[in-house]
Amino acid sequence: MSAHPCVGILGGGQLARMLVLSGASLGLRFRIMDTVADACAGQVAPLQVGDYRDEAALAEFAAQVDVATFDFENVPAAGAEWLAARVPVFPNPGALAVAQDRLAEKTLFGELGIPVPAFAAVATRDELERALDQVGVPCILKTRRLGYDGKGQFRIRSRDDAAAAWEALGPQAQGVGLIVEAFVPFDRELSVVAVRGRDGEFRTWPLTANWHVDGVLSTSLAPAPQVDAALAQTAVDYARRLAGRLDYVGVFALELFCREGELLANEMAPRVHNSGHWTIEGAETSQFENHLRAVLGLPLGSTAMRGHACMLNWIGKMPDARAVLEQPGGHWHDYGKQPRAGRKVGHATLRADTPQALAQALEQVGHALGRQAQVAPPLQALHPL
Amino acid sequence: MSAHPCVGILGGGQLARMLVLSGASLGLRFRIMDTVADACAGQVAPLQVGDYRDEAALAEFAAQVDVATFDFENVPAAGAEWLAARVPVFPNPGALAVAQDRLAEKTLFGELGIPVPAFAAVATRDELERALDQVGVPCILKTRRLGYDGKGQFRIRSRDDAAAAWEALGPQAQGVGLIVEAFVPFDRELSVVAVRGRDGEFRTWPLTANWHVDGVLSTSLAPAPQVDAALAQTAVDYARRLAGRLDYVGVFALELFCREGELLANEMAPRVHNSGHWTIEGAETSQFENHLRAVLGLPLGSTAMRGHACMLNWIGKMPDARAVLEQPGGHWHDYGKQPRAGRKVGHATLRADTPQALAQALEQVGHALGRQAQVAPPLQALHPL
Repeated sequence: MSAHPCVGILGGGQLARMLVLSGASLGLRFRIMDTVADACAGQVAPLQVGDYRDEAALAEFAAQVDVATFDFENVPAAGAEWLAARVPVFPNPGALAVAQDRLAEKTLFGELGIPVPAFAAVATRDELERALDQVGVPCILKTRRLGYDGKGQFRIRSRDDAAAAWEALGPQAQGVGLIVEAFVPFDRELSVVAVRGRDGEFRTWPLTANWHVDGVLSTSLAPAPQVDAALAQTAVDYARRLAGRLDYVGVFALELFCREGELLANEMAPRVHNSGHWTIEGAETSQFENHLRAVLGLPLGSTAMRGHACMLNWIGKMPDARAVLEQPGGHWHDYGKQPRAGRKVGHATLRADTPQALAQALEQVGHALGRQAQVAPPLQALHPL
Repeated sequence: MSAHPCVGILGGGQLARMLVLSGASLGLRFRIMDTVADACAGQVAPLQVGDYRDEAALAEFAAQVDVATFDFENVPAAGAEWLAARVPVFPNPGALAVAQDRLAEKTLFGELGIPVPAFAAVATRDELERALDQVGVPCILKTRRLGYDGKGQFRIRSRDDAAAAWEALGPQAQGVGLIVEAFVPFDRELSVVAVRGRDGEFRTWPLTANWHVDGVLSTSLAPAPQVDAALAQTAVDYARRLAGRLDYVGVFALELFCREGELLANEMAPRVHNSGHWTIEGAETSQFENHLRAVLGLPLGSTAMRGHACMLNWIGKMPDARAVLEQPGGHWHDYGKQPRAGRKVGHATLRADTPQALAQALEQVGHALGRQAQVAPPLQALHPL
């Protein structure tokens, strides 16, 4: 490999953008492939516009990269496999295929002894009724593939909702497939962001607490407060089992529900993850740099925290930066996108040496931006009643 | 200004590269102008190849940027002024002009009550003799302009060296001008890296200790050990006076000699500075981000340290990255350049929470890379006899 290897990234969103900004320091060059010309990673690296299923486009991409990875988990498995036959691809397409399919993923969790909410596959209207018998209500009907940020989901509160659920998602039963999952009345949502090297070395960042709004991550807090050593160890063990079985290389996130001190796996994201954005300033090595170190076979960096960190997602449009920039530990991330409803356009990370200082910063930023509702959950977690 | 303003940078070396990598998070776009097509910042931002004296090239550049700054202090003053008549340019060309001329700079230091080594301007062979009478030997004959990294300097150990010095640099007396400066038998070299905002807000990072080899920075250690509060305050006061007088906006470095507890100003660099590279990982806000915040009129970020940091410059070619990447606080910066003797091709920063841990990391890296000589001065400073 050259002294300045070229890393190909399939998908050119903010994750690719932050990979590029982090990896340039390692002397890496990048090439991005995305389906749209205004993909925001194209502002910081050469962008090839193409379809992930187009072998000619993939061949052009493969000819220019030394190794390839993803910012987007829904790259068609066939495209990933075609590419992997030509250049090293991490994570391997098999791991990607499992993570793309909620049924395969949950089945694997079960095999590995990782607790999951009850679930059942659904291919027909009749199977939906049987799945409701088996899983019970409330539950959620989801597409098996191509769902993200709460899209492709229908909440079934009682059996009376079954018809509406089928009307909404039934047409996708033959294409992407459907699954019913029990609704978990969780106390909180946690995630383990983990990295595994080519040599099998495995590291995790401290457990992160997450809050979603309308299915989209709103806020992350690290380290997650009120996590005892046993709970943290269990979460790390789950992530380690998963990574080992999949021969996973790179960063991934395992999303967990916590209910009365028990952990249930929700899903894994086979890529750097929104709940790990705080690692840029809050950890010795960011998830982005460690993903690239792993993909290139370099030694993994320390995942130790530097103080306490809270990440606030900006959805739709960017707020005024000043309130964050005026905080001593305020860090701003504008993805260079045009505003659009529901779009992740940026985030801020507040870092402080103590939970008290972090809470103070959160209060001030929430007040200045009129976003008290967004900062309330992490404030509550930092100041439990 | 647009939501994603475009910052123009004159000069496309590693400083511009690190400005881009830092500023992209703020949502900034960049345009680089350099005289060579392989300028390493061109790997991370659009690069325009042109001559800084070419008004057509400058006009093309100006048409695409909202604000302009420098990675290179020797941009011709006329070019900087031409540009400043069309777009906001920070630092202002007048400040740049002073910093470009050792005579103007030292004269200003004197006016501001900042002690400097004895100096005298030299235009002719006779004036060199008079300057030697006035300044004494040992001393150094230097070009007034366009010198950097020890280039354009001739050390005069005794009056017998005068003829050789004139032979070496005399031909430049009419062009860039010459100056004789007393040689200072300093105990150590320190630098203040400072930033001043458009609104006059002024901040400094902790004082940094620097070691040069053959006139080129080899190693920086921050915070500089054995600096009492009075010495640090004096250094900061000097930098503040300078910035105020020049109405300076952005980051600059003031290089100081320390002799028996007294500070003498050596020179100022009107840009982000090699002795501030450690701020990327070792401070809450890096010099690169704060330079851009200043230039854009945004609030300045905290310059507080995060632990202790040592920067090792890589000159000529990159060593093997592994020894650094294996350190818990090891951070790698490869500028993406081709190897060439004497060229700054990258650096590493070691960061640790304690001086003891930093010393241990330095010892291990020095040993692993066979660079014991490079790490010896900071080790000595961390472990004084």
